[in-house]
Amino acid sequence: MDTTVSIDEAIESIRELIREHRVDELRKLVIEMRPQDIVDVIERLDSSERRLVLGLIPSSYYVEILDRLSDEVLYEVVVSKGVSKIARIMSDMQPDVIADILARLPPRTRRRILALLPPWKIEEVATLLRYPPESAGGVMTTRIPVFSVDEVVGKVLEEYTVKYQLGLYDKLNYVYVVDRGGELVGWIEFKNLLTASRDRRLREVVQPCPARVHVLADREEAARLVVKYDLVEIPVVDDKDRLLGAITVDDIIDVIVAESTEDILKFGGLGESVRGSYLTARVTELVRRRATWLIFLYVMESITVSVIGFFENVLSSVIALSFFIPLLTATGGNAGSQAATLVIRSLATGEARPYDFLRIVAKEAVSSSLLALTISPVGFLLAYTISHNIVVASIVALSLPCIVVVASLMGVLLPFIAMAIKTDPAIISAPLISTVSDITGLTIYFTIASILLKLLGLT
Amino acid sequence: MDTTVSIDEAIESIRELIREHRVDELRKLVIEMRPQDIVDVIERLDSSERRLVLGLIPSSYYVEILDRLSDEVLYEVVVSKGVSKIARIMSDMQPDVIADILARLPPRTRRRILALLPPWKIEEVATLLRYPPESAGGVMTTRIPVFSVDEVVGKVLEEYTVKYQLGLYDKLNYVYVVDRGGELVGWIEFKNLLTASRDRRLREVVQPCPARVHVLADREEAARLVVKYDLVEIPVVDDKDRLLGAITVDDIIDVIVAESTEDILKFGGLGESVRGSYLTARVTELVRRRATWLIFLYVMESITVSVIGFFENVLSSVIALSFFIPLLTATGGNAGSQAATLVIRSLATGEARPYDFLRIVAKEAVSSSLLALTISPVGFLLAYTISHNIVVASIVALSLPCIVVVASLMGVLLPFIAMAIKTDPAIISAPLISTVSDITGLTIYFTIASILLKLLGLT
Repeated sequence: MDTTVSIDEAIESIRELIREHRVDELRKLVIEMRPQDIVDVIERLDSSERRLVLGLIPSSYYVEILDRLSDEVLYEVVVSKGVSKIARIMSDMQPDVIADILARLPPRTRRRILALLPPWKIEEVATLLRYPPESAGGVMTTRIPVFSVDEVVGKVLEEYTVKYQLGLYDKLNYVYVVDRGGELVGWIEFKNLLTASRDRRLREVVQPCPARVHVLADREEAARLVVKYDLVEIPVVDDKDRLLGAITVDDIIDVIVAESTEDILKFGGLGESVRGSYLTARVTELVRRRATWLIFLYVMESITVSVIGFFENVLSSVIALSFFIPLLTATGGNAGSQAATLVIRSLATGEARPYDFLRIVAKEAVSSSLLALTISPVGFLLAYTISHNIVVASIVALSLPCIVVVASLMGVLLPFIAMAIKTDPAIISAPLISTVSDITGLTIYFTIASILLKLLGLT
Repeated sequence: MDTTVSIDEAIESIRELIREHRVDELRKLVIEMRPQDIVDVIERLDSSERRLVLGLIPSSYYVEILDRLSDEVLYEVVVSKGVSKIARIMSDMQPDVIADILARLPPRTRRRILALLPPWKIEEVATLLRYPPESAGGVMTTRIPVFSVDEVVGKVLEEYTVKYQLGLYDKLNYVYVVDRGGELVGWIEFKNLLTASRDRRLREVVQPCPARVHVLADREEAARLVVKYDLVEIPVVDDKDRLLGAITVDDIIDVIVAESTEDILKFGGLGESVRGSYLTARVTELVRRRATWLIFLYVMESITVSVIGFFENVLSSVIALSFFIPLLTATGGNAGSQAATLVIRSLATGEARPYDFLRIVAKEAVSSSLLALTISPVGFLLAYTISHNIVVASIVALSLPCIVVVASLMGVLLPFIAMAIKTDPAIISAPLISTVSDITGLTIYFTIASILLKLLGLT
């Protein structure tokens, strides 16, 4: 609450100071803010205001804020400061943070900055950049305390303390233990190392790690393991189980937030979509990405035109049938979205797995049938009340349960199909489900209508 | 990957052992599994299989698994074991975990178990239970190291080590420092305490905490602060800034996962909905919750019946107009969902705030207009290709941009309206947006149709 108000107030003050050209006061105000708050403010300013404020921030502040900026603003800063100044600022950062920032810049800029870094950092950063940003390797840190199983507690503590004070380690709670080949043996919680007797060898006090993650595994897999085993960090290993690094809990949190944002955006029909902040995203970029999906869905949905057109005769003999088109398609889409949401979320958290397919389909078949039976009488009553047409109301009441069941089952099937063809199930968006269920729903509705009308001799 | 396969295999083996009544082997298999994996297996078994397996798990295992079970299975376990046995198991747990579990049980069961706990735990647990489960107080731990500013580093370290070895502290990286009134002064990272000289007072080495959270604040607020300031724990204070406890990072992760699940489920049209696991959720409960929303949306959507009915004359003179109803309503719904998703997510992560309302509306007005202009020619071409009717294709091409802009703006407005009336903006689901945009979309379409047809003298 407190921080929210102060940032909104800060923006007001900054705008006022800019309008009145009180640059010294402006500089003072900005310098007194916490780095995280500066980021919040910068992201909210117009680009001309932003340029002015960025010019006032001392270089030492950039170390704290650079990695928190959205992609757009980051690039703006790099362009306005120039690569050599940025490389100088980055020299003071930790290799994994440098790699994260570089991975978000265009390849040419990335290479130019990398070449300007101090030689001993280039190697570490280049190693990290080899792993895709969405992999465990892409988010790990290599600055971890690693000791051999043969070493003695007392010596390890000494070396650890020295290196820790030199700032060679990331924020970690465990000391990692490897054998002579570099294979991960386990870890020791730092506080337990303190209380262990000094002359014991690490092999006597090491604990097995509850989980480890392969360097090329999806970063989401790392997050899932951390959540499942309630960890605060997780070791990263290669094919031969050799320790390469570890992912710290603050990076895991960032992964969880980023992945759930991605899932939500996808579900809302934004495809791979809009990375970073909505507020600072360029409008053209936003439009390009939304338009792609919107047009794709439009083309798919146009099948419904042919479906209805196919039943033109039925429709022209009972024009009131058309009144219920949106009601029926919407209900199908809603039931399908509900089912898909449940399944996609369960798959994302690892609660459900491909293995559970049959169980989920069976559960959904039962639930959606009950749902259909619940909604059908409501459907009939409402349809009759509005149309005063018992035939149309009956057609609606007969179609509704079929549409609900079919749409729900499709909501469940589509995410699994996506998985089967090696796509992220989250790509199955609410709009996509609606589109597919519109096509099937209308076919069901008009087929039932034409059969019933024929039976009653009305066509 | 590895864990996934082994759990699926474990379930297979368990089912086989149950079928063949090999109870001893079954017990051995279960006991050898890790507690987290036992939870995964239990949640996947049918309730009869589950009862059998639960009976084989030794009490000591329950300490590890009880708090990880879904609400349904947790209650099943409590009922089958009986409250006195459960109270005995819970006596070995930490107060904040006990409070979390109790908060998930029905009030009567909760009171009965609470009364059976050891007296010294009752007080701590009861204190925690006073705070709502969704508040910062509901997820904090009270087992934190707290020392006065006047104490000396050497003595603090001694006391800390003793208490840590007695298991009196939760997993924490900081030692908290308060003044004489119990007000939070700051914290000291444990490793820094180790390297500080032993005779200094805490007031000389204490650091200010970058953030603190009020005990009654939403737990989401705590998570937002942790993410923003890259923390690994956050202190919880009362009105007078007195330290009450702290939230550890593993609990923050649980909050982030729970809240994003909640947001995704809401967006999928599941209202407050389905807590816990989809796989174990009772079908009747699932249906009840889905039906409520589905019927609510059905009733709202039925307004479209009247809208179309109102334009019956237009429709019967050009029956082909009805062919395009689903196409237009779907596109409106899709554009609205995209806009709503972006805004809801930005509001949830704190990236956008109510204060940004005008900026977001302006941005969306520009984006959606560009989007509309992009999609309109596609709309015309496709409509003409399918219908070979230039009049209808023109009506579609004219309505489409209006529908896209209006739906997008509504997608942006509704979450803010929800916030203004003190509701979670995530309640604005894709289905709700579609429903609202169907009503306005059809009105736009048929109004344009009737005007154009009148101008052309076709009605």
